[in-house]
Amino acid sequence: MIDIIRPTLVLDKDVCINNIEKMAQKASKYNLRFRPHFKTHQSAKIGEWFKLFGVDAITVSSVQMAEYFASHGWDDITIAFPVNILEIENINRLAAAIKLNIIVENKEGLLALTQKISSPLGIYIKIDTGSNRSGILPGKINIIEALIKLTGTNKHLLFKGFLAHSGHTYQTKSPYEVFSLHFDALMKMKSLKQRYKHIFPHLEISIGDTPSISICDNFNGVDEIRPGNFVFYDLMQYKIGACTIEDIAIRLVSPVVAIQSSRNEVVIYGGAIHLSKEPLLNINGKDMYGRVIVTHNGKKILLGELNYVMRLSQEHGILKVMQKNLKYFTVGSLVEILPVHSCLTANLMRRYLTTEGEEIPTMNY
Amino acid sequence: MIDIIRPTLVLDKDVCINNIEKMAQKASKYNLRFRPHFKTHQSAKIGEWFKLFGVDAITVSSVQMAEYFASHGWDDITIAFPVNILEIENINRLAAAIKLNIIVENKEGLLALTQKISSPLGIYIKIDTGSNRSGILPGKINIIEALIKLTGTNKHLLFKGFLAHSGHTYQTKSPYEVFSLHFDALMKMKSLKQRYKHIFPHLEISIGDTPSISICDNFNGVDEIRPGNFVFYDLMQYKIGACTIEDIAIRLVSPVVAIQSSRNEVVIYGGAIHLSKEPLLNINGKDMYGRVIVTHNGKKILLGELNYVMRLSQEHGILKVMQKNLKYFTVGSLVEILPVHSCLTANLMRRYLTTEGEEIPTMNY
Repeated sequence: MIDIIRPTLVLDKDVCINNIEKMAQKASKYNLRFRPHFKTHQSAKIGEWFKLFGVDAITVSSVQMAEYFASHGWDDITIAFPVNILEIENINRLAAAIKLNIIVENKEGLLALTQKISSPLGIYIKIDTGSNRSGILPGKINIIEALIKLTGTNKHLLFKGFLAHSGHTYQTKSPYEVFSLHFDALMKMKSLKQRYKHIFPHLEISIGDTPSISICDNFNGVDEIRPGNFVFYDLMQYKIGACTIEDIAIRLVSPVVAIQSSRNEVVIYGGAIHLSKEPLLNINGKDMYGRVIVTHNGKKILLGELNYVMRLSQEHGILKVMQKNLKYFTVGSLVEILPVHSCLTANLMRRYLTTEGEEIPTMNY
Repeated sequence: MIDIIRPTLVLDKDVCINNIEKMAQKASKYNLRFRPHFKTHQSAKIGEWFKLFGVDAITVSSVQMAEYFASHGWDDITIAFPVNILEIENINRLAAAIKLNIIVENKEGLLALTQKISSPLGIYIKIDTGSNRSGILPGKINIIEALIKLTGTNKHLLFKGFLAHSGHTYQTKSPYEVFSLHFDALMKMKSLKQRYKHIFPHLEISIGDTPSISICDNFNGVDEIRPGNFVFYDLMQYKIGACTIEDIAIRLVSPVVAIQSSRNEVVIYGGAIHLSKEPLLNINGKDMYGRVIVTHNGKKILLGELNYVMRLSQEHGILKVMQKNLKYFTVGSLVEILPVHSCLTANLMRRYLTTEGEEIPTMNY
């Protein structure tokens, strides 16, 4: 870790590639199209690593992100975000250039597409399997059929199937809860597939969340998976049971700038603008923003859960550590923080330094 | 608001300039040096607006930010962050180029400065007035005197005084609490000044937090103020009583992409990577991430506190609104969100669009 002098997002490329490989193998085993979500890493370079495992289709969360990856050679992209009518010209331009899919969940968004789109565009209807974010409840057949019908009014729009993101799995605390939510989502999606398959024989079911796809082994009726977070994983995924600590591929390396021994606290240069303010409930019932790895006699030691980032201001992070572990901290040394939510940390940091010393920018750098 | 098609941080320049002017007047009224903290806006262009009110000295929160503003002509900068020993070469280079001050709160950091600094550098000792982040408790006279003594071992280092940031005022819920914390901090700082003034007649007291400085009128013994957030203010400051709603100078303008009438929810394009995950406790006891302004018949309407951003994922924001207000939302229109913590929102958005149509980058754009 030579040359790190300020908060730096270090990426273990081997761990990352291993995460990609395992997910690609899982997709292959269950005969699923692997369309990884690139919103977590947001990097053309990391995107290249997916190609080693045959990935040629991706998911993104914004039109801008689609434009970025299209400019880096990706020509089959699903924008897994409800149509933003105000960006319809950008969507139309992109549809003319690559194989593009988008999701709809209301008449207004789809109507705008039927009026403006002049190149082939795949349409997925977003189903709300329980996350209550966006999407149509699976029982709202009238609305679903009105959207399917409306799609048919523009010959460039192709109804491709139903798409879900069971984001409520992120709130779970055990694999058993994930099993249950995933099974429930599968039932809902399969019933829709069965209802419409005779009219649309190529109709697809696409599902997305990293917890379900990491933990579960039943993908009956599913055609495509779109996990994103698995590329790095994080403490939230670890808590759910979707990964091991060793699977977490990124960490914020931060300088120690102060030690408050009387309070068993350590102050690091690394705050809310580096890690993000997304908290996770620690075993002591308090909010935490990361776990701590120290280097001692050349060896890395992951400290226990009662040693954690307990508070963040703009540039400062405050670690609460057990008194016996204060010995591992010296002002001017570096510590490593495992992030709670890698998507938000990566978005803030905007570039990676691999353990091999390579600097990798994201689309925002 | 022509041309806004995706989440955009709109800045009302008049409101912002008014905030700067009021604070400059307050500093002048109480005969205080006004050294505003630029970590909130992080923009050279907005920095220029301060010069209209005679500001020629600033505060920043990192060495990088000091380098950025120095490269834009600022030549009197305090880095209000404990010495990061790993950046000591950068600090030394900057000290050779401009009038630079830094804060110390431990022997290790100061020792590194005494060994490496070869140009004049002002030293403030950081006092912990109660925020329990970094700094020395005011009663720890032995430590304070050891630091003062150590400063004297390098002729380039000049002990300038004591600096505090009463960050615990951000956790208050009323001006009365702020009065009390500010008074307590003043007592602590003044007693230090009295103790050492006979040895260091030019010794200064510098204080920082926006709530105290906005609300209070007693600055007895204080030489310098370093507020930052006041340039934009936000809902956190409004809740404390440090500003009015009309003083909030920025808002995230976001497209509406879905309306879930059955749940009284509206989905906007504008999420954790735009607003930040910093929550504020709403009047209904729930976390909130922003308040909502709609445009109706050409008029702006700030909806009540029960209409708020209740949930954020990476790109999505979920508004909970009262049923009677659903009529103000249509898919494809724009709404405005008042941010909870403007420093974090500005850091994420990385540029501003003024209400007059000017694009203003931050140091990260």
